[in-house]
Amino acid sequence: MKFQKPKGTVDFYPEDMDIRNQVFDSLRNTAIKYGFQEVESPAMETLKMLEVKAGAEIKKQLFSLEKKGDEAYSLRAELTPSIARMFVERQKELSKPVKWFGLSRMWRYERPQAGRQREFYQLSVEMFGSDKPEADAEVINLAIDCLKDLGLTNKDFVVRINNRKLLEGVIGTFINPKSAGKLINYLDKKDKMSKKDFEAGLKTFKIKDLSKFKKILDASLKEIAKLKLNEQAKQGLENLNAITKLIDKKYIKFNLTTARGLAYYTGTVFEVFDKKGKFRSIAGGGRYDDMVKLFGGEQCPTTGFAIGYATLALLLKDRNKLPKPNQCVDYYVVIVGGAKEKALNLVSKLRKKYSVDYDITGKSISKQISYADKINAKEVIIVGSKDKANQVTVKNLKTGKERKILTSKL
Amino acid sequence: MKFQKPKGTVDFYPEDMDIRNQVFDSLRNTAIKYGFQEVESPAMETLKMLEVKAGAEIKKQLFSLEKKGDEAYSLRAELTPSIARMFVERQKELSKPVKWFGLSRMWRYERPQAGRQREFYQLSVEMFGSDKPEADAEVINLAIDCLKDLGLTNKDFVVRINNRKLLEGVIGTFINPKSAGKLINYLDKKDKMSKKDFEAGLKTFKIKDLSKFKKILDASLKEIAKLKLNEQAKQGLENLNAITKLIDKKYIKFNLTTARGLAYYTGTVFEVFDKKGKFRSIAGGGRYDDMVKLFGGEQCPTTGFAIGYATLALLLKDRNKLPKPNQCVDYYVVIVGGAKEKALNLVSKLRKKYSVDYDITGKSISKQISYADKINAKEVIIVGSKDKANQVTVKNLKTGKERKILTSKL
Repeated sequence: MKFQKPKGTVDFYPEDMDIRNQVFDSLRNTAIKYGFQEVESPAMETLKMLEVKAGAEIKKQLFSLEKKGDEAYSLRAELTPSIARMFVERQKELSKPVKWFGLSRMWRYERPQAGRQREFYQLSVEMFGSDKPEADAEVINLAIDCLKDLGLTNKDFVVRINNRKLLEGVIGTFINPKSAGKLINYLDKKDKMSKKDFEAGLKTFKIKDLSKFKKILDASLKEIAKLKLNEQAKQGLENLNAITKLIDKKYIKFNLTTARGLAYYTGTVFEVFDKKGKFRSIAGGGRYDDMVKLFGGEQCPTTGFAIGYATLALLLKDRNKLPKPNQCVDYYVVIVGGAKEKALNLVSKLRKKYSVDYDITGKSISKQISYADKINAKEVIIVGSKDKANQVTVKNLKTGKERKILTSKL
Repeated sequence: MKFQKPKGTVDFYPEDMDIRNQVFDSLRNTAIKYGFQEVESPAMETLKMLEVKAGAEIKKQLFSLEKKGDEAYSLRAELTPSIARMFVERQKELSKPVKWFGLSRMWRYERPQAGRQREFYQLSVEMFGSDKPEADAEVINLAIDCLKDLGLTNKDFVVRINNRKLLEGVIGTFINPKSAGKLINYLDKKDKMSKKDFEAGLKTFKIKDLSKFKKILDASLKEIAKLKLNEQAKQGLENLNAITKLIDKKYIKFNLTTARGLAYYTGTVFEVFDKKGKFRSIAGGGRYDDMVKLFGGEQCPTTGFAIGYATLALLLKDRNKLPKPNQCVDYYVVIVGGAKEKALNLVSKLRKKYSVDYDITGKSISKQISYADKINAKEVIIVGSKDKANQVTVKNLKTGKERKILTSKL
C-alpha cells in the first residue's frame, strides 16, 4: 500500500532541497551581517501561550496535539511567541538590544493555495530593547537586504510602510473611536480589492466627510504633513519621517492603509509586495512595544518581521533568480578490471576534499558511466588495473575530453 | 504571566544554536562527500503510515494531532518511513542507487533523560538499490567518517557490527524457532545488563547446551567461522566478512548479540557506542531489504543509519570536541559626535562583506564600547566628526591597540 503526504505539505526532493538550502544560507548570512544571532525553539508550545498574541480564535487555525498529560500543546503558527518566551526567560541577564532570528518551519490549518501551505518555512527576525527610529530602520533595511542579496531589485519589490499612530490619529478625526478598529481592518484590505468594491464597503462605515477621507487614503507623506493633524497623528508622522530618512527611498512607499490587521502593532508597520502584483505579500512586520509584557516580561520595545519561503521562492522563480541546484558530485570513480583496492583507496583519499561516488551495485563499466552522467558528476575517474600504480584517467563527460593524471595531482 | 516550554524539548539560544549549526554542517558535508543528497519531508505523516514499520504499539509513543478531517496524523518519530514514502513515489524514474539523507527533528513521547528528549534531531541516511557488501560498507564508513570529521577517534567510539542471518542461524541450532525472536530481543540488551543478571535471565529460555551457547555469544568472528554452522549462519558470516574487509578494522568490533531489536532488519546490523560507556548509543543502522515493499514500493535492497544529535553533543562535550561558538560580529561601529551619516554609510558598505553592528538605542559612547565588548565584537571602529572624511579609528578590545585607517582599506 502506498501512502500520501498530508495535504498542504511539501516534500523537498534533492533539487528543491538544495535550492532551499541556498536561499536559507543567503537569508542567514544577511541576518548575521546585521549582527543578528540565530535561535531555535520547539515546534510545539502550550496552547495558552499561542493564544496570548493571536487571541483564542487562533485555535481553529492551529494543529493541536492530542493531550498526553494535563497540558494542551499545539504546533506553532509563527515564531514570535516562542522567541518572546525565550527572551523573557533571560530578559534580566541579556545585554540590550537583543537581536535574534529563527529560520524554521511552522504549521497553520488553512486552505492551501499558491504561496500558502499548511506546513511552511519562515525567516523570523526580532529586535528587543530599542524604541528608536534607528531600530525600525535596521529591521526594514535588513528585510530589504535579504531580498537584494537574493538578486531582487526595486523593480521586483516595494516595501509599503506606515505608522499605526498616524493611521489611528487620522481616522480618529473622521469616525467614532469605537468603530476605528473595524475600519482599520477594512482599510488593510484596500489593495486586495477593486476600487469600486472598496468604495462601496467604505460607505457602510459612518465616516464624516467621506470624500476628504478618501483623498487622504491616497495622499503622499508630504500631503499628509500639510493637514491639520491631532497629537497622535503628529507623533506617528514624525516617527515615520525619522525612519524613512534612514532607508533607501527607492525601496519604500508610504501607504496609509497598511495596518497589518492586529491591534498588536504600536508604531511602524510594513509589508513587502511583488511589484507586478502576482503574489501574496513576501514579508511583513513592524513595532509591537507591548508584546514582551504579554508574554510575562518587563515592558520592552520590540520590532521585527518575517519572510515566508513559499512566496519568496515563487517570486524568485518568476524573476529567474532562483539559485541553480548544485548537488552533483565532483568525481565518479569507475573501476575497471581488478583495480578495486586502488580505486577504493583513491575514493577514500579524495573524499577528504571532494564529493566522490563509485559503484556499489555491481554495474557494468558502461552502466557506471551512464549513471555518472545521470547524477551529473563533474568528472569521471577511470581506475584501471593496467594503468601505472599512481596514474588514472580523468574524463569530462560534457566535453568528452580525457587526460592521464597522477593520483597525487588530484 | 510567564510561559514554559514543553517538557522534554530544548530551546537553542545563540551559543547552542551556533554549536549545533557547526555540527550539522559537518555531518551534512560528510554525507555530501559520500555522494548523498539532502531531502526534507513534512513533520507530520498519516498515523497508518507511521505504524507500518514500527507496529501499532508505536501509537502510544507518538505525538498525534487532533483530527481536523478524516485522516489521523502524527508527528514523525524517525525519518526512515518518510524517506521511504518519498522514494516509493518516484521509485520508477530514479536511477539506482539512490543515496539520500535528512537532517531534521523528530518527536517521541518518552521519559526525558540524558541524551533523550521528546523533541530531538537526527541525521538519517538511506541508500536504496544495492544488496552488495559495498553498500553496507559505504554506510558504515560514512557513519565512521561523520564522527571522525567531528574530531572523534577510535579511542572515543566503536562500531559494534553483526549480521541478523548469522545471529538467527546460530540461535536456530540452540532453540525452538518459535522462541528465537524473544531470545534475540533479550540478547540485544546484553551489554546494558550486569553479567549476573544477564545469565540469570538467559536460563529462562529453553536453550540446548547453554554453556556452549554462552561461549559463542562472546566468540570472535574467527572462532565462529570454525563452528559447524547451518546454511543461514554461513551466508551471514560470509556477508559479514566481505563487509568488514572494506572497513578500517580499528573502528569496528564484531558482536554477535547486537540485533537492533526489530525483526525488520534482514542482514547487517550495527550500533556505535562511546568507548567509555558513559552514554546511550550514538548511532545505529543496518540493512532492511523488505522495507520499501512495506511502504508500497517494489522490492528494493536498502541500508541506512541514524545519528542522534543529543547523545552526539554529550559525547563531543565529554571529549572536549564540541565546536567553539563563533557568533561574534566582525566590527562594532561607535559613532562620536555628529558623524552619524558617515558612520551609517560605513556600516552599510561594510555589511556587504562583514557582520557589523552599531548602536540603535541611543547609548553613550562608553556604553557602546562596553556593549561591543559584551557581544565579543572582534574590533571596534570609532567614527568621529573630527577625523578626516575617509579616516576612522579601529580598536581591538582584547589588546587595546588602536590604529587610524582609511575606510577604503577596511
